[in-house]
Amino acid sequence: MARNKDMDMAGSSFGRLFRVTTFGESHGRGIGTVIDGCPTKIKLGAEDFAPEMSRRRSSDHRAHTTPRRERDQVEILSGVFEGMTTGAPITLFITNHDVDSRPYEILGNLFRPGHGDYTYFKKYGHFDFRGGGRYSARETAARVAAGVVAYKVIEPLDIKVVAYTIELGGVKAENLELEAIQKNPVGCPDPLASKRMLEILSEAAKEGDSIGGVAEVKISSCPPGLGEPVFDKLDADLAKALFSIGTVKGVEIGAGFEAARLRGSQNNDPLTPKGFKTNHAGGILGGISNGDDIVIRVAMKPIPSIRIEQETIDRQGNPSKIKLTGRHDVCALPRVLPVLEAMVKIVLADHHLRNRAI
Amino acid sequence: MARNKDMDMAGSSFGRLFRVTTFGESHGRGIGTVIDGCPTKIKLGAEDFAPEMSRRRSSDHRAHTTPRRERDQVEILSGVFEGMTTGAPITLFITNHDVDSRPYEILGNLFRPGHGDYTYFKKYGHFDFRGGGRYSARETAARVAAGVVAYKVIEPLDIKVVAYTIELGGVKAENLELEAIQKNPVGCPDPLASKRMLEILSEAAKEGDSIGGVAEVKISSCPPGLGEPVFDKLDADLAKALFSIGTVKGVEIGAGFEAARLRGSQNNDPLTPKGFKTNHAGGILGGISNGDDIVIRVAMKPIPSIRIEQETIDRQGNPSKIKLTGRHDVCALPRVLPVLEAMVKIVLADHHLRNRAI
Amino acid sequence: MARNKDMDMAGSSFGRLFRVTTFGESHGRGIGTVIDGCPTKIKLGAEDFAPEMSRRRSSDHRAHTTPRRERDQVEILSGVFEGMTTGAPITLFITNHDVDSRPYEILGNLFRPGHGDYTYFKKYGHFDFRGGGRYSARETAARVAAGVVAYKVIEPLDIKVVAYTIELGGVKAENLELEAIQKNPVGCPDPLASKRMLEILSEAAKEGDSIGGVAEVKISSCPPGLGEPVFDKLDADLAKALFSIGTVKGVEIGAGFEAARLRGSQNNDPLTPKGFKTNHAGGILGGISNGDDIVIRVAMKPIPSIRIEQETIDRQGNPSKIKLTGRHDVCALPRVLPVLEAMVKIVLADHHLRNRAI
Amino acid sequence: MARNKDMDMAGSSFGRLFRVTTFGESHGRGIGTVIDGCPTKIKLGAEDFAPEMSRRRSSDHRAHTTPRRERDQVEILSGVFEGMTTGAPITLFITNHDVDSRPYEILGNLFRPGHGDYTYFKKYGHFDFRGGGRYSARETAARVAAGVVAYKVIEPLDIKVVAYTIELGGVKAENLELEAIQKNPVGCPDPLASKRMLEILSEAAKEGDSIGGVAEVKISSCPPGLGEPVFDKLDADLAKALFSIGTVKGVEIGAGFEAARLRGSQNNDPLTPKGFKTNHAGGILGGISNGDDIVIRVAMKPIPSIRIEQETIDRQGNPSKIKLTGRHDVCALPRVLPVLEAMVKIVLADHHLRNRAI
Repeated sequence: MARNKDMDMAGSSFGRLFRVTTFGESHGRGIGTVIDGCPTKIKLGAEDFAPEMSRRRSSDHRAHTTPRRERDQVEILSGVFEGMTTGAPITLFITNHDVDSRPYEILGNLFRPGHGDYTYFKKYGHFDFRGGGRYSARETAARVAAGVVAYKVIEPLDIKVVAYTIELGGVKAENLELEAIQKNPVGCPDPLASKRMLEILSEAAKEGDSIGGVAEVKISSCPPGLGEPVFDKLDADLAKALFSIGTVKGVEIGAGFEAARLRGSQNNDPLTPKGFKTNHAGGILGGISNGDDIVIRVAMKPIPSIRIEQETIDRQGNPSKIKLTGRHDVCALPRVLPVLEAMVKIVLADHHLRNRAI
Repeated sequence: MARNKDMDMAGSSFGRLFRVTTFGESHGRGIGTVIDGCPTKIKLGAEDFAPEMSRRRSSDHRAHTTPRRERDQVEILSGVFEGMTTGAPITLFITNHDVDSRPYEILGNLFRPGHGDYTYFKKYGHFDFRGGGRYSARETAARVAAGVVAYKVIEPLDIKVVAYTIELGGVKAENLELEAIQKNPVGCPDPLASKRMLEILSEAAKEGDSIGGVAEVKISSCPPGLGEPVFDKLDADLAKALFSIGTVKGVEIGAGFEAARLRGSQNNDPLTPKGFKTNHAGGILGGISNGDDIVIRVAMKPIPSIRIEQETIDRQGNPSKIKLTGRHDVCALPRVLPVLEAMVKIVLADHHLRNRAI
Repeated sequence: MARNKDMDMAGSSFGRLFRVTTFGESHGRGIGTVIDGCPTKIKLGAEDFAPEMSRRRSSDHRAHTTPRRERDQVEILSGVFEGMTTGAPITLFITNHDVDSRPYEILGNLFRPGHGDYTYFKKYGHFDFRGGGRYSARETAARVAAGVVAYKVIEPLDIKVVAYTIELGGVKAENLELEAIQKNPVGCPDPLASKRMLEILSEAAKEGDSIGGVAEVKISSCPPGLGEPVFDKLDADLAKALFSIGTVKGVEIGAGFEAARLRGSQNNDPLTPKGFKTNHAGGILGGISNGDDIVIRVAMKPIPSIRIEQETIDRQGNPSKIKLTGRHDVCALPRVLPVLEAMVKIVLADHHLRNRAI
Repeated sequence: MARNKDMDMAGSSFGRLFRVTTFGESHGRGIGTVIDGCPTKIKLGAEDFAPEMSRRRSSDHRAHTTPRRERDQVEILSGVFEGMTTGAPITLFITNHDVDSRPYEILGNLFRPGHGDYTYFKKYGHFDFRGGGRYSARETAARVAAGVVAYKVIEPLDIKVVAYTIELGGVKAENLELEAIQKNPVGCPDPLASKRMLEILSEAAKEGDSIGGVAEVKISSCPPGLGEPVFDKLDADLAKALFSIGTVKGVEIGAGFEAARLRGSQNNDPLTPKGFKTNHAGGILGGISNGDDIVIRVAMKPIPSIRIEQETIDRQGNPSKIKLTGRHDVCALPRVLPVLEAMVKIVLADHHLRNRAI
């Protein structure tokens, strides 16, 4: 198996004026982010991060999430003076505490199907068998922390960003009662569907399997004008931001794939003095926000880590079997929702600053 | 209607090492691109562009495309010496010949539903009523030209990129005979489905309406290792590239939205000494190409320009009716296929160079 | 002589929000620039470029400049609609007319000392013997054109940028009468020194030799606050911009090298309610403009093209003699002054936009 | 005194493929850097940083440096696994230990002449009176740490980078014995001149004053081909890198300002089969390294912190007097030498990777 010996990465930054760089590995010292370009005079303290971090963290309140328990306390290493941002780069760090690499060690030589083990090995000549290292979902903790700062940048615009589960294990939400999202452990706005989703989760957990789902992200009160054509369109940057999350396999905006089945006369959103009559566009026209709700749906594959035996090969290319025993979620969605929101907030903060550059 | 007075754009470049900037307007002097970072010693002549440009151009061979006839001859303004690239920026220019702005002039004050008129006006304080100006599909001619150069960069890797119609007006392709793609005017690999698609096109044309569809892009023989985690993942950059095309409303990779309905035990692609057993991943794992075919599906909305009367408002916010009479395609797909391929080639060229940076 | 076969360039853009890309070669179709990120609603017409282009162009009014006569008419290929910038990329193009490559052809195999021939050959595997191709001073015509647009961006701030000769062939200007700059062909503010400079120019011309000099650039009425520490400081970006001009070998700001000989108590500029008492800092503190005049001095080497026989080697490494016969300036300064101003204006426009991003 | 309320920074990154971001403040939690784009498989441990960090650190071995004593122990927070770089971002952190902000507190309201206090206040609406905060020279500790990693990238090319003092307080080095550099506390290659420099340092220290100087940086064994015209030329990026260091007021390459006084026939370096006969170019032609030694001279102003009373104003614009009592160096040079080397190494690593991108 030929391999490149010394490839670089250099893809760890996102955004142009509000620039987020994440660093850190699943089983290393910790996870962190440097945010360059955050405006000054924004109130920021370590306590601001707790609510979002807790949403992303696995816990008893979350359904069938990994038993790994991280306190995920965010330390501010730079960029804040007397409780306010200074304009200097903000560094946030989250120490890894509950690191147990033992379950992974016996796998050190095998590529886990559905994971980045194989491709990282082909690209970088090695892979971090300890829970995925850099490509572990743990990296998203840094994104959630950055999202908290991003939201502070756009908060004065009154933008709201909320992500929720609309499909899980094949069960679709029908009634969207947004206030129900926080009430059930799958983050679904349909209480009835949530129950069925939980049953499916339990079932899959029992079988050692995992399940996928679809989330929706709604951005309300977004001002018109965000987006920088022809390449840095708002929808293009949102799609990139969401596809940069490990489990995402599809993104659609507004009517999405359904728009492909409509006629122009049905899909066009008529303009009236009171606003758009419909919202098939999903709040974005010509790559620029139009002031209407931005509605994005995100398909997430089932988590690749399962306790069922699978075929694989080792680093030398020999066939083998693998059966994972580590601590794993059954479904990514409940914990990914705050990550989706964070990435969306980062895109909005960046485009808000770019839009204000003149 | 409040508006920002002097917003900038600065989003007209794509790529990091193979950097494509497009410029030009639909009814201006012409359309062009500057490509910075193209390797030296690549054979390049004006004649190399004709085949792809002709695929994108409307013509009698294309079904129900705009009667605007552009020769779309690509001039090389810089970067080539003695028939070879020199490493200097390559500038390609396509003069606009058949520019007829008259049909647009009577609309000068009205926002066309589904177009960028409204959002450009809100962002830039003006909009180019002459066929969309910068946000016209004509801009994609420059992308197709850049794609020709991009492909020359990755050609030595034997990568193949092909886009085709798999759904149009609700009709789905069932049998994929790739050699059939060039034989029918809708670029569909299923000859039977193509016929039905053409009927639907005629029907919609008669009614003055437009229709949407779904395209698939297949990248074969892509080497493993392309993609720069954690943000510049190959799938993330492909998604951004495709969403930067005006009509795109959805992108899915591999099993895509269907993956959301699978169990991990079904969706994971087992590894064997001969390669992956299945390809739900669509050729990308952890944001890096895995050597398998990369399969992307792209949802395209119906073209917003229709000859049916629609509700809209004018610049002052007054309600009005609009009925377009200009020259318009009935369905974007046939002409967008080479644009999809071009954007994919540009992403591959950029990531190929980034992967070789060490 | 080993050489890399296929290096890329990708360094043809400058600026972050006001982003200038130049393209074109000395003896190709022409020279041009794409400016991405220019604000909208700025009045711009082809006629705006004539004065600056004429300053850079060789002419009878300039002392001892190349007999190559270019009209240097700037065409606007994109980004302007109804006489105003639209926010879309602005493309400017200057056709090469008076191209005479014959004098160069006999040199095709020899590296001209002091030129980029040797290094381009080592890096790109070829070099453009026709007047330097990409690395010809002709490329700076595109910079001057971009500078005209840049100045329109900062004009509302009332910033003034003026460059002048303060030393030429060893003769130093003593009395700075700024109104004298336009009156003599060497752009020197000291009428007496100018006379002596002209004599030296004639002398060198007669001998087929060339001479160097020092220019000063003064930026007045620059508002405080421009510059983005810790790397994109205003002085750092000015230095990069100026060192990117072919003949520049040194840059100093404020007291410059003289500051190295001062004590802190002498060099520090005391602050008073009326402003700074002295200006050793040259208008920049901590990488940020302080509101005082920004004063930069730029050392320029003698033009390497001389009519005196020189030692060199050919592509195969064999020793040889070279004696140039083409059309060359005796001293770069008179024609470089508008280029210095243009680069400074581009830096100021970019930093002005970055400073306004929030 | 009007001021902008909420400016951003976003200028804390340097390099394109080898991308260094620094963060941290003088009197905050610590100083650090994230390096994105470092190749994999490079041996790296915390112990690698000690020698360079110790050179930059003040100590008894250094002449007249601040009594602030920092251990400057570099912790690797990410990017290294089993003693080797992984391709993931490398985060280095240096905790601030000996932080004594008290001497600064009484100055909280006054702008220190020659410092960034005034401009930071004008730009960001505040300034960090605790030793300069972000614009303290302490930030350069992160650069030195990044330089250690950069050098590992270019080490296989056998490039050597060495900086030394050639002028201090008006005394010039005449004999350059490079082995003498490490032997005297001013880093000067002329033992005789060093003695006189030390006397001048003592004198200035006694008077509470500071002195400036000139350093030279020599890069030997640099392969030809580094540099990306027309803007990212090697000399342009070196100049930017060096001017981004707080005390730098001038940079010249090769013959530098002296070239302005030469004729072309004197300044051109003749090529022979054995290489260049002279090196007025300073190793760079057309913005690309030519294989010869790269020689750069850097002018450094006297450190602005002096114990002599100076005129200044407070935040409200009232006139005042200021007399600093904190811990300060008398001359920046001895401790800046490793910073100059670090910045040069970072530029070389970045350009080396860019040059290898194809």
